[in-house]
Amino acid sequence: MTINRSWLLARRPQGRVSIEDFAYREEPFVTPTLADGEVLVRNHCFSCAPTIRNWLNPPERSYRTSIGIGQPIAGMAGAEIMASRHPRFSAGDYVTAVSPWQDYAVLAPDRAAVPVVPVPAGLTLADALGPYSPNSLTAYFGMIDVGRAKIGETVLISAAAGSVGTVACQIARIQGCRVVAIAGGPIKCAWLRDVAGVDATIDYKAGDLPAQLAESCPTHVNLFFDNVGGEILQAAVDAMALHGRIVLCGQISSYDTGKPAPGPRDMMRLVYGRILMQGFVVGDFAARYDEAYAALRQWIKRGDLICRTDLREGFDRLPEAFVDLFRGNNEGTLLVSATSGLPDQTRTDSSSEQGR
Amino acid sequence: MTINRSWLLARRPQGRVSIEDFAYREEPFVTPTLADGEVLVRNHCFSCAPTIRNWLNPPERSYRTSIGIGQPIAGMAGAEIMASRHPRFSAGDYVTAVSPWQDYAVLAPDRAAVPVVPVPAGLTLADALGPYSPNSLTAYFGMIDVGRAKIGETVLISAAAGSVGTVACQIARIQGCRVVAIAGGPIKCAWLRDVAGVDATIDYKAGDLPAQLAESCPTHVNLFFDNVGGEILQAAVDAMALHGRIVLCGQISSYDTGKPAPGPRDMMRLVYGRILMQGFVVGDFAARYDEAYAALRQWIKRGDLICRTDLREGFDRLPEAFVDLFRGNNEGTLLVSATSGLPDQTRTDSSSEQGR
Repeated sequence: MTINRSWLLARRPQGRVSIEDFAYREEPFVTPTLADGEVLVRNHCFSCAPTIRNWLNPPERSYRTSIGIGQPIAGMAGAEIMASRHPRFSAGDYVTAVSPWQDYAVLAPDRAAVPVVPVPAGLTLADALGPYSPNSLTAYFGMIDVGRAKIGETVLISAAAGSVGTVACQIARIQGCRVVAIAGGPIKCAWLRDVAGVDATIDYKAGDLPAQLAESCPTHVNLFFDNVGGEILQAAVDAMALHGRIVLCGQISSYDTGKPAPGPRDMMRLVYGRILMQGFVVGDFAARYDEAYAALRQWIKRGDLICRTDLREGFDRLPEAFVDLFRGNNEGTLLVSATSGLPDQTRTDSSSEQGR
Repeated sequence: MTINRSWLLARRPQGRVSIEDFAYREEPFVTPTLADGEVLVRNHCFSCAPTIRNWLNPPERSYRTSIGIGQPIAGMAGAEIMASRHPRFSAGDYVTAVSPWQDYAVLAPDRAAVPVVPVPAGLTLADALGPYSPNSLTAYFGMIDVGRAKIGETVLISAAAGSVGTVACQIARIQGCRVVAIAGGPIKCAWLRDVAGVDATIDYKAGDLPAQLAESCPTHVNLFFDNVGGEILQAAVDAMALHGRIVLCGQISSYDTGKPAPGPRDMMRLVYGRILMQGFVVGDFAARYDEAYAALRQWIKRGDLICRTDLREGFDRLPEAFVDLFRGNNEGTLLVSATSGLPDQTRTDSSSEQGR
């Protein structure tokens, strides 16, 4: 008998997410009858992204997803199509999709808020969830299109050691910017300097962010790529150059509080500073993913872009990995494989920290 | 003996500005010895603009001006050059400039933060401080360049009956937008509908702003031109369409509190909504003022743009007029003439509410 394992939302996190917020369930797997347009997938690998934390909150804000209590957690996953009644997908295909934290699930690609994307030719599932993941695409379009990073500019990036941040830092460096990276702790800062090649780092855990910013950004900040919000956003706003731009990618500082992330304390600072703030979501750039894949591929091949994948094994460790994300205990993109091994197609290749 | 009258800052306003915050002084006027690059001006007319309120606060925020206690209040004025040691200005010229609230003052145009601008040919001083004032230029560049108002869009404007707001509303209407104006009280709303030709009005004093916004903007707001901030900004953020833009022109709701104007409560709303916010100051567009003058002139001539000037007489009434501004007791641009009449050059022409 095949078992279908699930991680469900046991209760809504009060403030910080903990493993007690999740409930494990096993059920016998019964092959479902698919409706037109549906596919049956087997999830091999799950990406623990901060945005999932938002979905654990109550459905009070209409513009974001809310997972019901007792329902499976969902997040980006690497999956194999087991059966398909969708014209674009066939059994044996590998895809990335927002999928429930279950071994087996039925998806309806045409109704999915986040597109179900075939793993590009020549890439493994781990590649598709790592260096070529939506997080890397977010860094690409956020830095190039939304932020319009220009040569010689001082670019500040928060959560710089995270999945989006590491790629954003390196793309800014490749664009010829002076890159200042904010991360937590000396190990992450050392990696950013020594491997990602940023010009300066700020350890927010070392305190006095404004003083560290003043020292690292003597000519102020032209572009701030913000994944964090809150006090870090405030300190960055105060450090912006005239006509500076702020790319609003995420606000992870608030995700784990259950409270919204407030804006800057003084909007007149934005008026007098001629400051631009721009929110974005990567899905809007779906028509241009191939452009981004090509650029990422070239940079990775050349050794200009190093992507870190923190791959952990075992479906049972999913909540623990997710909780780690909010303690900063991950190094790059945090992936959890469903079993102790990935299927052949998805075997992690030694090149995941290649080059340079 | 000639007297030089002044209005000085008597004390820093605690919250709402009041006439007790101002002190009147008379001194004998002694013709000063000008240094190179200086001009002596006689101020004929003063523009009471909300931004002056910011300058009355303590110098705690480095990015804005702070007037010292016992120093003259300063603001945009229409002035006559009495004597000049500046190569571009001659006695008899009329200019607009940020000048102290005094009859006579020495200015140094090359060191002025806001340019000293000759009154354009064919315009009176009242025109230059009214329909062609920096406020109108602010509306022009804010709506056209920063906001990029496009045909068919729903454009929301706060403080819509104010000096910037009335012009911003009409420029949006001229651009083919659906214009929704927020103002205080039925008289201002009626003027906006009947004279300025906006499509809908919201009386914020009538309460339940979110419900009024939902009713007036059923397809949400594409562009919000914000002069107010605070609760009005928050309500507008909640009413924005995907990819909406917010032009940050001013935050008058906070000016009179002495406290900074906070940003939106939930920055993730900006991320998920792909919302852009952009602060600006009109001085950045100084090289293109002639383009704006030409457009304004054409629209005024055609009767498409109606500018309201609330001209009051007498230097002694300056603080009272300024306090009125924060009670919403003005109708359009609030000007105060230094004497009971303006000099011939500056006589207000009956065309100040012409056309349409």
